[in-house]
Amino acid sequence: MGQPGRTVCFGEVLLRLAAPDRELLFQSARLEARFAGAEANMAVALAKLGRAAALVTVVPDDAVGDAVVASVRMHGVDVSGVSRGEGRLGLYYLTPGAGLRAPSIIYDRADSLFARARPEDFDWPALLVGASWLHLSGVIPALGPDAVKLGLAAIEAARAAGVRISFDGNFRPSLWAEWCDDPGAILSEYVEQADLLFGSHRDVALLLGRPFDGDEPDGRREAALAAFGRFPRLTHIASTTRQALSAGHHRLSARVDEREAWHETAALDITDIVDRIGTGDAFAAGVLAGLDDGPEAAASLGLAVAALKHATPGDFSQATQRDIAAFRSGGLDVRR
Amino acid sequence: MGQPGRTVCFGEVLLRLAAPDRELLFQSARLEARFAGAEANMAVALAKLGRAAALVTVVPDDAVGDAVVASVRMHGVDVSGVSRGEGRLGLYYLTPGAGLRAPSIIYDRADSLFARARPEDFDWPALLVGASWLHLSGVIPALGPDAVKLGLAAIEAARAAGVRISFDGNFRPSLWAEWCDDPGAILSEYVEQADLLFGSHRDVALLLGRPFDGDEPDGRREAALAAFGRFPRLTHIASTTRQALSAGHHRLSARVDEREAWHETAALDITDIVDRIGTGDAFAAGVLAGLDDGPEAAASLGLAVAALKHATPGDFSQATQRDIAAFRSGGLDVRR
Amino acid sequence: MGQPGRTVCFGEVLLRLAAPDRELLFQSARLEARFAGAEANMAVALAKLGRAAALVTVVPDDAVGDAVVASVRMHGVDVSGVSRGEGRLGLYYLTPGAGLRAPSIIYDRADSLFARARPEDFDWPALLVGASWLHLSGVIPALGPDAVKLGLAAIEAARAAGVRISFDGNFRPSLWAEWCDDPGAILSEYVEQADLLFGSHRDVALLLGRPFDGDEPDGRREAALAAFGRFPRLTHIASTTRQALSAGHHRLSARVDEREAWHETAALDITDIVDRIGTGDAFAAGVLAGLDDGPEAAASLGLAVAALKHATPGDFSQATQRDIAAFRSGGLDVRR
Amino acid sequence: MGQPGRTVCFGEVLLRLAAPDRELLFQSARLEARFAGAEANMAVALAKLGRAAALVTVVPDDAVGDAVVASVRMHGVDVSGVSRGEGRLGLYYLTPGAGLRAPSIIYDRADSLFARARPEDFDWPALLVGASWLHLSGVIPALGPDAVKLGLAAIEAARAAGVRISFDGNFRPSLWAEWCDDPGAILSEYVEQADLLFGSHRDVALLLGRPFDGDEPDGRREAALAAFGRFPRLTHIASTTRQALSAGHHRLSARVDEREAWHETAALDITDIVDRIGTGDAFAAGVLAGLDDGPEAAASLGLAVAALKHATPGDFSQATQRDIAAFRSGGLDVRR
Amino acid sequence: MGQPGRTVCFGEVLLRLAAPDRELLFQSARLEARFAGAEANMAVALAKLGRAAALVTVVPDDAVGDAVVASVRMHGVDVSGVSRGEGRLGLYYLTPGAGLRAPSIIYDRADSLFARARPEDFDWPALLVGASWLHLSGVIPALGPDAVKLGLAAIEAARAAGVRISFDGNFRPSLWAEWCDDPGAILSEYVEQADLLFGSHRDVALLLGRPFDGDEPDGRREAALAAFGRFPRLTHIASTTRQALSAGHHRLSARVDEREAWHETAALDITDIVDRIGTGDAFAAGVLAGLDDGPEAAASLGLAVAALKHATPGDFSQATQRDIAAFRSGGLDVRR
Amino acid sequence: MGQPGRTVCFGEVLLRLAAPDRELLFQSARLEARFAGAEANMAVALAKLGRAAALVTVVPDDAVGDAVVASVRMHGVDVSGVSRGEGRLGLYYLTPGAGLRAPSIIYDRADSLFARARPEDFDWPALLVGASWLHLSGVIPALGPDAVKLGLAAIEAARAAGVRISFDGNFRPSLWAEWCDDPGAILSEYVEQADLLFGSHRDVALLLGRPFDGDEPDGRREAALAAFGRFPRLTHIASTTRQALSAGHHRLSARVDEREAWHETAALDITDIVDRIGTGDAFAAGVLAGLDDGPEAAASLGLAVAALKHATPGDFSQATQRDIAAFRSGGLDVRR
Repeated sequence: MGQPGRTVCFGEVLLRLAAPDRELLFQSARLEARFAGAEANMAVALAKLGRAAALVTVVPDDAVGDAVVASVRMHGVDVSGVSRGEGRLGLYYLTPGAGLRAPSIIYDRADSLFARARPEDFDWPALLVGASWLHLSGVIPALGPDAVKLGLAAIEAARAAGVRISFDGNFRPSLWAEWCDDPGAILSEYVEQADLLFGSHRDVALLLGRPFDGDEPDGRREAALAAFGRFPRLTHIASTTRQALSAGHHRLSARVDEREAWHETAALDITDIVDRIGTGDAFAAGVLAGLDDGPEAAASLGLAVAALKHATPGDFSQATQRDIAAFRSGGLDVRR
Repeated sequence: MGQPGRTVCFGEVLLRLAAPDRELLFQSARLEARFAGAEANMAVALAKLGRAAALVTVVPDDAVGDAVVASVRMHGVDVSGVSRGEGRLGLYYLTPGAGLRAPSIIYDRADSLFARARPEDFDWPALLVGASWLHLSGVIPALGPDAVKLGLAAIEAARAAGVRISFDGNFRPSLWAEWCDDPGAILSEYVEQADLLFGSHRDVALLLGRPFDGDEPDGRREAALAAFGRFPRLTHIASTTRQALSAGHHRLSARVDEREAWHETAALDITDIVDRIGTGDAFAAGVLAGLDDGPEAAASLGLAVAALKHATPGDFSQATQRDIAAFRSGGLDVRR
Repeated sequence: MGQPGRTVCFGEVLLRLAAPDRELLFQSARLEARFAGAEANMAVALAKLGRAAALVTVVPDDAVGDAVVASVRMHGVDVSGVSRGEGRLGLYYLTPGAGLRAPSIIYDRADSLFARARPEDFDWPALLVGASWLHLSGVIPALGPDAVKLGLAAIEAARAAGVRISFDGNFRPSLWAEWCDDPGAILSEYVEQADLLFGSHRDVALLLGRPFDGDEPDGRREAALAAFGRFPRLTHIASTTRQALSAGHHRLSARVDEREAWHETAALDITDIVDRIGTGDAFAAGVLAGLDDGPEAAASLGLAVAALKHATPGDFSQATQRDIAAFRSGGLDVRR
Repeated sequence: MGQPGRTVCFGEVLLRLAAPDRELLFQSARLEARFAGAEANMAVALAKLGRAAALVTVVPDDAVGDAVVASVRMHGVDVSGVSRGEGRLGLYYLTPGAGLRAPSIIYDRADSLFARARPEDFDWPALLVGASWLHLSGVIPALGPDAVKLGLAAIEAARAAGVRISFDGNFRPSLWAEWCDDPGAILSEYVEQADLLFGSHRDVALLLGRPFDGDEPDGRREAALAAFGRFPRLTHIASTTRQALSAGHHRLSARVDEREAWHETAALDITDIVDRIGTGDAFAAGVLAGLDDGPEAAASLGLAVAALKHATPGDFSQATQRDIAAFRSGGLDVRR
Repeated sequence: MGQPGRTVCFGEVLLRLAAPDRELLFQSARLEARFAGAEANMAVALAKLGRAAALVTVVPDDAVGDAVVASVRMHGVDVSGVSRGEGRLGLYYLTPGAGLRAPSIIYDRADSLFARARPEDFDWPALLVGASWLHLSGVIPALGPDAVKLGLAAIEAARAAGVRISFDGNFRPSLWAEWCDDPGAILSEYVEQADLLFGSHRDVALLLGRPFDGDEPDGRREAALAAFGRFPRLTHIASTTRQALSAGHHRLSARVDEREAWHETAALDITDIVDRIGTGDAFAAGVLAGLDDGPEAAASLGLAVAALKHATPGDFSQATQRDIAAFRSGGLDVRR
Repeated sequence: MGQPGRTVCFGEVLLRLAAPDRELLFQSARLEARFAGAEANMAVALAKLGRAAALVTVVPDDAVGDAVVASVRMHGVDVSGVSRGEGRLGLYYLTPGAGLRAPSIIYDRADSLFARARPEDFDWPALLVGASWLHLSGVIPALGPDAVKLGLAAIEAARAAGVRISFDGNFRPSLWAEWCDDPGAILSEYVEQADLLFGSHRDVALLLGRPFDGDEPDGRREAALAAFGRFPRLTHIASTTRQALSAGHHRLSARVDEREAWHETAALDITDIVDRIGTGDAFAAGVLAGLDDGPEAAASLGLAVAALKHATPGDFSQATQRDIAAFRSGGLDVRR
């Protein structure tokens, strides 16, 4: 069947300014500055797994934008689709959690270059050459009415080019709350075009406007089947179930639903958490990379990439196939 | 009833020199240098919670003393009562604990400016204007016979001015051991004047000279009642029960006893502990801030402030009402 | 004549994100995060010198805004005039210079809370109680037409209250270039109301629309006299002459012009420069603090505060009267 | 019986380059650089416990070798037996584990000065003066055929001088795999000369060529007895049983077998692990220091030193008798 | 004439372990770890200037090698020619200079993967597709007789493919001293094939076996003409003259000789030096990028890139065309 | 004549708490913590130069004292004469200078263990076995009347044992000012017993009670001759002349006077100063190590050690004979 084509990831890159060590925000004059964003995270995670990945976005034409490009390119992501413009890079302030203190994010992303981009700024036919997948997330439409169109234009171009569409719900209520009463309706426009949806029973509930009981696997299957019913193009739905026992100890399981089959992994206890931001995107990358091997393989790879991301500083997954193999070989002895 | 008056906190400020990261003391040439002290901790914690708080102390008239003032003032504490003199600031070396290694403190506080201060160095009638509470701790009399008088002078002035007295036992055997055979007798002089006592059944045992079984809530109530019997002015006793499972995992509950009622919270599992020093003072601040709302509210707020302090580097609590609300809203999901 | 009243500083506070050590921007994942802004710098510098100073601004009502308030309050600045709102804090990225590489700043300050503030957001009569001076800078009108009005409203209120006005030209061509062809005209509206102007012969040239030769003291006097002619209310003009031999070695002299007299200091060689950002504001604070002692005293104090600021990380001057006395006592021996 | 003689530790010192904080290797431009090596670890651990210890090795005659010497000498180890030569110091890259990610080591130790040393480079009769014990580990023969002879020469000299021999199996499959099909045969030559063996039932299995079931204490006793049978000179075997629940949480018990008696401690839960590398050497030092007090004392001291090492950055144990006493006094309260 | 083809840089990448801040080597447990190597430096510097550049080398097939690839790829260098193998990466320890203490390097590069590579490991016809230049340096033959052949094979392939050859003498006496009495003879084999030589009058003296007086420009011209005489293929020779006044203050000028013309720049005073390692490679990149614009442009660009490199941590130049323009615009004022 | 005996250095060790990087004191929560003290500096500097050196002092019997011992022992100093007691270690706060800001020290050394020691606490006959020199400084008598006796007891013991005495004036006016009107009289008691005096014409003026003009070498010779006249036992006087052009740029020359001959070096420009504290002790160590080779050799070695100390963080010289040879070989090129 040959090497799969590349995955084109379309979305906004943000600067993530985090309190270092285990300080509170601005407790000292030091911040950790890394780049982030759901779709960039996906691109990096795929590239580290050895899959061809490209990022399409727009960043400032200055030293800040240069740094964005370098931070993604270093991991092997194709950055030829990153355009440059005059304007600002959105950012967020992160206070990581500790113990019983939850992680906290303050967004400062309004009026970014990406949020102000227009569909015609991207030459989609050219950008999608050689692509198997277009990946984007629900953060795009959450940015406002113009961004809704921006995302749909990419989707339409992919559809026209025969490129499969991967959509991660990534529901951010605080972004939607600023301008939209019915995010479910808009998100449904996106999901209608998707082949692969990353979303839990809660996302499905938002899309379908009715609740599901996600406490048990059966309820989660019910939600998946309802989504398959509503969105005929959809072939896969992937999701995690996460229980946060403390900021440093989560319990995580992964599942992938197809129309005829599904698989849900056992729950992993993830302790000594180093950085939980971006673990959902790491999961998504693992699923996408494993999708052609069936739901069990996809769920398992997604869970492995996500688990390792919890032990990695920054938004970006760094897990290589070498790391996945080590993780799967089991055991926590020193590897020499 | 209007806005409560301010809380005047009287006590010594120390420089805390801590091994950074998780090193042992002097394992590298780096130390974390922060200011500390039971009463300063109280003042900062109250100010962060939005309560008017003032610190009364004496610090060197040099760049070290300037730094003490700035470190407290930044959090909104009134520092107009901080006097300056010629002499040294006491200090302590802290090796934080890890796993099965307990935290360890080496004091170097003898002959500090505060320890050598005299009652007449403080113009108490002026310092107490507008005050609802005077707060001080058992560290003061532990410093020696002169310091015993220093604390009592403050207490008498408060009594004369109709200002309520909050006293935190803060029993430090190593300090008392240097000069005094019967700390209980001296501490009782303080508690006799107190309206609010921070002290466990062990402190009560020291004061009353007889043991109490504090393993169960009932035994703790018995100790409280005995204390109310011995100290007729006392209206509230607040305490925590702490079980240290490892240096990074404690189990903590809080209780507040009144003469007619009491409340004890369920125990919280506090994991991933960042810094446990000062958590007792954080608890005390929460209790004082919540005292007028009854024992349950006071115990609950005390526990919340203490829990968040465990996740905060340095002696000072940084929890605002915004943080308390987030903590109480439950959940450890990322707050965006 | 009694203690001078306080200086009310009105202006925007920015987050300054600087490459640490001597790295380039984003060369590592670390940034130094400090707060800055011409008027906040002035307020802090005055407070450190022992002068009453207040800051009037607006910052976000979140942990970022809390940090702004704490960073200024710690130095003794009155922050009761800092209001809070929903919105963003402007920021800039700083790559400090080294050797033959000039320092470089990238602004990201559009649409900040301050830039969107309106005159009626500030209760000037109350804010100016007890004030001797209102200080503001040319950065305010540079932010756009609305900000022009914001600054003028403050000036009018000060004029009405009999408060003297100190204005620092702080000409930023890149800000003006976005919206205004004739900044000189707008700045002149400000200077017409000012008692004290911080500005060089180049600023005067901008205001008067004709060039001055500032290479020699006489030419600088000519420019000052021309400004006094054009702006009848003006009583003092203060300026520095700076020659940058390398990023770490500048030569700096200071002058103060009155209508009848002037003084220009000898040039100081300032080497081993730690941080040159904010040195102009440090100079302004020294001049303002020394103004009542005549031009020589004012220029000398301005130069001393500026010189010490070059040896201080961050935008804020930290020089106390103790430091000024040490600086003036001469000698670079170790002070013990 | 007098003060026991010193322990001469013979082996290679390596530079350990570790990713700092909880980063991945080379995620930033910072590495933690410390010196390490099984036998140097033993020497330092013994010296910190107050026992006379000497290190015999060879290091480069440059600033790198100077640093090795200083790093060991600072803890009180006799370094008069450290010789200097032209060549390289071996090293390894360490990525510490976190959560479900195991620690990982990449060796770069080929062709080091030590690996190329010859028996005649060491004047053993002089080096062993005053010694009670010679300690070395299975890392030496793992380095290759020449190193096999190097270790045996030391052993023979010790035997000749009446010095007891302590041998730590320290089995490193990746080193052996490069050149040897039957490490058990070579290791047996070493163990035949040993009085004290550090090795688990798995090491015994390797030596004897048959498996043992080490899941229960009885099976571990069986392995020990088999080893005593095979190696008539052996008087003590010491081992730990370790269960890694996560990278930060291990469960550890210790045992010491004599021919007639044995003791196995209860398992300790070791959480918040700071650095697990070198904990086996720390255990060995505790056992050796406690050996004359019987198996229970030896196992208990070994476990205590090992437990504290888990809470200590770097390969070297830093536990003093003061620390051991504090550990044994129980409790995780702040020690003041 | 169209866009110039890419420059293929062939050489060894080393790990550079440097004492941080201004510490001595191993004075603390921290090292700065960056990748380096004359030819990798060239590739990165060219890519940052916007020129297509590729690196051909071999690095370990593990996390260390991954980091090498990422460190070069992030700057836009084509890494498709980097092969992976089993073995070690060479390294060096750097103690940067300060004041009157010279920088000091200790090499640990023997037996690296690159030093053990063979000509047939590189598919030169494929690697040189689209290339205008092959760049390599005298460090390659210095590694030993096998490496001499390795470099010559690359040169022959380039010659066959019509690719111009750029050769940087980079004379390292300590490497040659280990195995070769007459480095000049071997280096001449390389220079005979070169179109562009980076080398001073001292390098020419080594090649030709007779001294030149390089104190004045005329003497330097004489050396260049002698080299042109001896090496008929050579069209350009580029060199710098450097005077080290202290570790932090150098004086540097640049020259480029053609057969008929030459240009030498005025000397620049480079102060506050951040990192002088790699500045020669930065110069070479600037010359190569400017070569088609004549000797003056080439020398000037080379000097500009070199000057900025002195203000940049690490071996790699980071100067973009934006930075060069800023440098040339003159002035050390803050750029906003 | 054989290997010279060891130098026994007697004096107080202090903790030096310095603002890191180029921050002001307490500008961040980080301090650099190193150990210091004139005589410990001497011992370390001598040991690094390869001379046998011992430290006699008293430090606390806790982790702080352990760290003192380790910090000195690592450099090869004999610490068998360091006794342990109950009490505090003196300390000082250092704000390093920068540019036109002088370095500043705040002492907190009163009531230290050393200051409270008594002559009988030291068994001088045993401590001086094998010694050629006893070295101590004027800091000892400056600590108070008891310390005056402490130093004299050591001197008498040395005199009795035929050990030569080296005395460094190290005049600290702020220490003397607390208790003594005539330090010159007390210091003269010390110098009367000394063979070698480290002191400038200013120290001689203090001792003799009359001024000398030290601007020229001749005046410095006059002061030396006057000292030789007053103190018949004295055979050598060593001193430096230092001119501080900025905090980072000093000009330093060294001289050694004998009764019949003297030598004064040319002045060195010492730029990019990393740490000037302890450079006087480094000079003294160089002189003592070179004393037997005549005044020129002694002055030259003293200047070399001092110059390198300016480029070394911390109080301790780290210069080895290898470093001295490199320094003397001249040139600031990279040493490979």
